[in-house]
Amino acid sequence: MKKEEKFMAEAIKLSRESVKNGGGPFGAVIVKDGKIIAKASNKVTENHDPTAHAEVNAIRIAAKELETFNLEGCEIYTSCEPCPMCFGAIYWARLDKLYFANTKDDAKKIGFDDSFIYEEIALPHDKRSIPNIQILREEALKAFQDWENKEDKIEY
Amino acid sequence: MKKEEKFMAEAIKLSRESVKNGGGPFGAVIVKDGKIIAKASNKVTENHDPTAHAEVNAIRIAAKELETFNLEGCEIYTSCEPCPMCFGAIYWARLDKLYFANTKDDAKKIGFDDSFIYEEIALPHDKRSIPNIQILREEALKAFQDWENKEDKIEY
Repeated sequence: MKKEEKFMAEAIKLSRESVKNGGGPFGAVIVKDGKIIAKASNKVTENHDPTAHAEVNAIRIAAKELETFNLEGCEIYTSCEPCPMCFGAIYWARLDKLYFANTKDDAKKIGFDDSFIYEEIALPHDKRSIPNIQILREEALKAFQDWENKEDKIEY
Repeated sequence: MKKEEKFMAEAIKLSRESVKNGGGPFGAVIVKDGKIIAKASNKVTENHDPTAHAEVNAIRIAAKELETFNLEGCEIYTSCEPCPMCFGAIYWARLDKLYFANTKDDAKKIGFDDSFIYEEIALPHDKRSIPNIQILREEALKAFQDWENKEDKIEY
C-alpha cells in the first residue's frame, strides 16, 4: 500500500468508527512531513455544532498543535470530497494538497446536502434558496478602510 | 433606522472593533425572534484558527446557546459577503436569511482571498491551484453503507 493510501485508510477508519459512535460517516487526517498530526471525524450532532465537519475539526486540531493559522507544508486526507465549507477552510488553511475518496454525489445519495450547497453557491444572490440581502455597504466599508490604514496588522 | 439596519450596524461595529484589537475587519451577529443571540468577530490570528471567521464563530456560539446544530428561525447579519466556507456553514446551520454589507470584491481589494476561493470552487478538480486527488473510493463507500444501514442514526 502506498503511503497516500495508508493515510486515506486512516481517514476512512475514522469515518466508520464515527458511524458506530453515532456521528456522521466522515473522517479526515492531516499529514506533515510524512506523519499524521491531526485526526478527526464529524461531530455535528455530538457537539451541537453545524461547522464540526471532519475536515474543519482536523484543521482546527492541526493549527492548534502547530500554533499557527497557516498550514503550508501539510496535506489533508478526507474520506469524502469536501463540502464548500470545508473546501473554503482548506484554502484558508493554505494546505498543500487535498486527497479525497467518496464524492459529493456519493454523499448526496445518502442524504447529505454537499452537492446542493455547491449548486447554490453558483447561483446569483437573488436565485438562492436562503435569501441573500445586501444592506449598509457604505457603513461597512469603513472597517475595510480601518484595515487598510492599520500599520501593524497581521495579514492572513 | 429599520431593525435590519440596526442589527447590521452591530455587525459593522464588531468588525471595526476587531481591527482595533488586531483581528480581521469582519463581524457578524445572529438574531432569533428579534433579539441578538450571538455576536462574533474574526479570530483567525488571535486563536491560531483559519476557520475562525466571524460567521463561523457566530454560528458556533448560537448553536451552543440553543443546544442544537439546527438554527432554523435565525438570521445572520455579516459585515461582509460570506466566503465559501462561511456560506457553507450558513447552509448547514439552516439559517433562514443572510444579510451582508461589503462584497467579496470589496474584500479582494484589501487583500482577502474570498473572491479567489469562489473562482477555485467553480473549477474542475484538475484545474484547481491546490491539487484535488481522488483515491480509495470503494473503501470509503463502506462508511456510507454503514450509515445507510444504521437504524438509530441522528440525521442532520
